[in-house]
Amino acid sequence: MSMKPVRSVKDRVVLDTSLFVNPEVRNDFGNSPTEAIKGFLAIAEQIPELEFYMPSSVFSELMNFVDQRRVPGRFLAVLKQKSPSKHELTCPAFFLYELIEDIRDRINKGLRIAEKAVRNAGKTDEKELIQGMRKSYREALREGIIDSKEDVDLILLAKELDALLVTVDHGAITWAEKLGIRWLLPTKFKDYLLGFVDTGETDLKPTSVNQASSQ
Amino acid sequence: MSMKPVRSVKDRVVLDTSLFVNPEVRNDFGNSPTEAIKGFLAIAEQIPELEFYMPSSVFSELMNFVDQRRVPGRFLAVLKQKSPSKHELTCPAFFLYELIEDIRDRINKGLRIAEKAVRNAGKTDEKELIQGMRKSYREALREGIIDSKEDVDLILLAKELDALLVTVDHGAITWAEKLGIRWLLPTKFKDYLLGFVDTGETDLKPTSVNQASSQ
Repeated sequence: MSMKPVRSVKDRVVLDTSLFVNPEVRNDFGNSPTEAIKGFLAIAEQIPELEFYMPSSVFSELMNFVDQRRVPGRFLAVLKQKSPSKHELTCPAFFLYELIEDIRDRINKGLRIAEKAVRNAGKTDEKELIQGMRKSYREALREGIIDSKEDVDLILLAKELDALLVTVDHGAITWAEKLGIRWLLPTKFKDYLLGFVDTGETDLKPTSVNQASSQ
Repeated sequence: MSMKPVRSVKDRVVLDTSLFVNPEVRNDFGNSPTEAIKGFLAIAEQIPELEFYMPSSVFSELMNFVDQRRVPGRFLAVLKQKSPSKHELTCPAFFLYELIEDIRDRINKGLRIAEKAVRNAGKTDEKELIQGMRKSYREALREGIIDSKEDVDLILLAKELDALLVTVDHGAITWAEKLGIRWLLPTKFKDYLLGFVDTGETDLKPTSVNQASSQ
């Protein structure tokens, strides 16, 4: 039993773009990226217990999908943009082993895919063959792996802030599991947020946000 | 001006297999891997100022190249086998960014090599084409990158021990530069060792080892 500190630390959430951009997820909040931002904002502003973050690099990506003139200024305050402190953070060395072994396997797999395509050349349309090879190659070498600066930003920022990471990216989720980072699929995120609103004394009942469109 | 500590810490050296296995380097010490081990041992035993290490994984590789019955037992004592403390060591996070970006570039390069090979199919002998593609692919995806557990072991052990890393591996040298690890090409290593013997009161004069052949 411990005394509750006078000023309790807020729990933190790190978001990737999928929440606003990926149509399967976004529709929980709005039917366009810009509307999804507004829908998120309406709920997030009612939850003083949470702080929301997005890596600056990911935020720039998000801005490519929206009509920036229609994004409320409040969004910039509610969703804090911050890069991870990449020159102070460290990662455990055993992690390098897993990364290197994983990449090694994938590189070998990529070569086998290329060899198969060369052997099939002539048997099928070249354009189709190349398109098929590209697809298999990219799946083998990229799926489930962190393959961009933005993905590393997401993981490191969540680690730095001890935050909940909301993402659909398989690579980011795999790393989150290895590094002890909490994560949540964006499809569950609206319910997660409404769980905070639900308990409160605010006059906005969950029904007014969640079910209004269907009533 | 500081007092010299009573017991000074020995400087440490981490070796990879090339010193004993790579013919271009090995000949400084002996004309077979087993002879090179003996040649190294004869010099190393005269240098109390240095401690020599090899990661256990790399040592196993080395043992595949030698006649184990002919390797002196002293070699096991002079060249200490030790894995890095991989669950205690950390690496700076900015390093992950460089690694991921590098891999991303290489993956794209690999795909372009594969596409080119598919387009050339039919124009040339399939077997030759595939062999050529394999070579280009491996060069693009592996050269200058750390791509094995053994390479990571070398780098981390050198870091942990604050040791001089003696290697020809481009990937390991690139990482050594980024992580502030001292490194030396194996072709310079015999001279480096003889520099220690040179100053001593031992009865083995440098001329007898180093300059005998040129005088």
